[in-house]
Amino acid sequence: MIYLDNSATTRPFDEVIEAMASMQKETFGNPSSLHHAGVIAERAMTQAREQVLAAFGGSEEGQFIFTSGGTEANNLAIIGTMLSRIRRTPKIITSKIEHPSVAETVLYLQSLGADCRFAEVDANGQIDLEHFYSLLDEDTDLVSIMTVNNEVGSVQNIQKLCRMTKAKNHQALFHTDAVQALGKVSVSVRESGADLVSVSSHKINGPKGAGGLFIRKGVHVKPVTYGGGQEKGLRSGTHNTPAIVGFGLATEMTLASVQAKTAEMHRLRKLLSEGLASIPGCRVITTEVAAPHIVSAVFPGIKSETLLHALEAQDIYVSSGSACSSNKPQLSPTLVAMGYNKKEIEGAIRFSLGAFTTEADVQAALSAVREQTNLLAKM
Amino acid sequence: MIYLDNSATTRPFDEVIEAMASMQKETFGNPSSLHHAGVIAERAMTQAREQVLAAFGGSEEGQFIFTSGGTEANNLAIIGTMLSRIRRTPKIITSKIEHPSVAETVLYLQSLGADCRFAEVDANGQIDLEHFYSLLDEDTDLVSIMTVNNEVGSVQNIQKLCRMTKAKNHQALFHTDAVQALGKVSVSVRESGADLVSVSSHKINGPKGAGGLFIRKGVHVKPVTYGGGQEKGLRSGTHNTPAIVGFGLATEMTLASVQAKTAEMHRLRKLLSEGLASIPGCRVITTEVAAPHIVSAVFPGIKSETLLHALEAQDIYVSSGSACSSNKPQLSPTLVAMGYNKKEIEGAIRFSLGAFTTEADVQAALSAVREQTNLLAKM
Repeated sequence: MIYLDNSATTRPFDEVIEAMASMQKETFGNPSSLHHAGVIAERAMTQAREQVLAAFGGSEEGQFIFTSGGTEANNLAIIGTMLSRIRRTPKIITSKIEHPSVAETVLYLQSLGADCRFAEVDANGQIDLEHFYSLLDEDTDLVSIMTVNNEVGSVQNIQKLCRMTKAKNHQALFHTDAVQALGKVSVSVRESGADLVSVSSHKINGPKGAGGLFIRKGVHVKPVTYGGGQEKGLRSGTHNTPAIVGFGLATEMTLASVQAKTAEMHRLRKLLSEGLASIPGCRVITTEVAAPHIVSAVFPGIKSETLLHALEAQDIYVSSGSACSSNKPQLSPTLVAMGYNKKEIEGAIRFSLGAFTTEADVQAALSAVREQTNLLAKM
Repeated sequence: MIYLDNSATTRPFDEVIEAMASMQKETFGNPSSLHHAGVIAERAMTQAREQVLAAFGGSEEGQFIFTSGGTEANNLAIIGTMLSRIRRTPKIITSKIEHPSVAETVLYLQSLGADCRFAEVDANGQIDLEHFYSLLDEDTDLVSIMTVNNEVGSVQNIQKLCRMTKAKNHQALFHTDAVQALGKVSVSVRESGADLVSVSSHKINGPKGAGGLFIRKGVHVKPVTYGGGQEKGLRSGTHNTPAIVGFGLATEMTLASVQAKTAEMHRLRKLLSEGLASIPGCRVITTEVAAPHIVSAVFPGIKSETLLHALEAQDIYVSSGSACSSNKPQLSPTLVAMGYNKKEIEGAIRFSLGAFTTEADVQAALSAVREQTNLLAKM
């Protein structure tokens, strides 16, 4: 299998799978239980929390609340902070290229009366800083801008966006969806100054069912769901300890070799990008400055689903748009915002590299794309 | 280890652990992906959904929405239906002995202005039907009454409560938290008539991180969180496919031998209950008609934590109150509602049996409790 859909989900590391099975067999207690079986489960969870917090700069910066994944973390960040500021209409600024777990959540608050504004992006998927600045005012409550776009890999300068936000209103909160960033580009809040950062386990060879929200010290968040009061009341429900432990381990393993891994991904991405650019009828969307793991391209005149299935027949897996929104038959809002037309967007393919991707995978994918687009162009 | 805290959480079946590891290694695709790796993950999930739906009477009755667990299912049932009826103040009836994931969610809606009423229970933990009936009126929107109480094991007659509700207002929705019921007493909606039923995987030897909500055909629910639109828009976020598959398998395995298993649990429970009743200073709370897996008792004058830790030293694990609320130093609202006083409640211990509990476990626990209470009484 040549799996180039790592932005949709990744295969967990073997060490993660083993650690989880071991938790399920031997450390299956409920960490809320007072007895030893609960205490050792809680200890394992504390270690995982430290492993994840290291990505943000450590526990001095703030806390990390475990959730069931990135979507829940984004909802908690946006709904949870805006419910804390219910005294007047909340003002929220986001972008036109956010993941649905941010975009739909903001639209939900808009339907309840929030004042929501959407920053434009340029043809490379970069926030239009002038437009962004024009949206900010001293009443801005929350800004939510993703670190790495899931469809094209564009990276935003979170530090700069955060500074611009705080310059207009130092009480405004800055949230970033860093689900596609963790393990690829820095998510350190010491560098960026972000108040809230969402991450997900299954994008970095950790298990599905874990993720969470970094919350800077002093930032107040209210829960979105209610119950037993786990995670300091912010996320009730029995802890998914095996997944949490797997997430911690995957984060530690990813960060331990992050420089070498991302350098190799950059090299493979360049290879893939240049190879694609040489294929007739293919236009590469992703730029040189993007995250190391994503290359998107459009094949105008070819339906991306057709190409996807033609590659699948050769055991090569890629994505048409993002998996997260593939159930909805609509044009990618990200590509629309970047200025692509219908014909181009309908022929968009995303290749996403992961920890296990090899040069041979990239070469095989390039050969197959060249061959299949040639065949499809003739039909 | 003698693990008698199965109402807090259970050890997953070996078959479940293996099925999950296999999913993580070989079927790790995102079920929202269009390619084969996604399709086979989705197929596995479809099978799991059927396995779980069988518990409620099959897919003709309604749909099953996978969530991260019972807490999220309860929140979805209560917030999700009441947000659909926002045209006027919602009227909600629940009981004084609900799990925090129902109780706290109802209190949250009350804080937003909902009219919430709390049914009394008798000394056995049974809903006071007369009081319950007096709370109902033709404007009642939602009733939420748990099938099996998590602290004392009392079983409510959901069919009767549901009929009483519908007799007053046939449009009222009936929700039951059946997290402690699945695999122990019937959760069939054909029998009960319930519209919404919450269940959890990790209470029936399935993995943590999975659960869900049965929704009867024609019942409208709105999402609580927003994103990619998975689970028919009701529960966004990448599917936790390994946990979902493990949950399906655990449900099938549990239901396949449910009669023999619950008969054996009833026998062991009777043994435990009678043994406890013969220990000086012990008063058994749980009645004969309770669910097969829970026995609660009070030891007035002994602090339950002290007894819990004394038993733990002998590798015997029990619970003081429910694990779900053990982080909060308050008297159990369930035992307060049942009429127990502070001294009794502070000496409450819950023993909960599971699929792996043996007669030897019960005998060893009884000996240890007899010995330790004798020692503690002398101190």
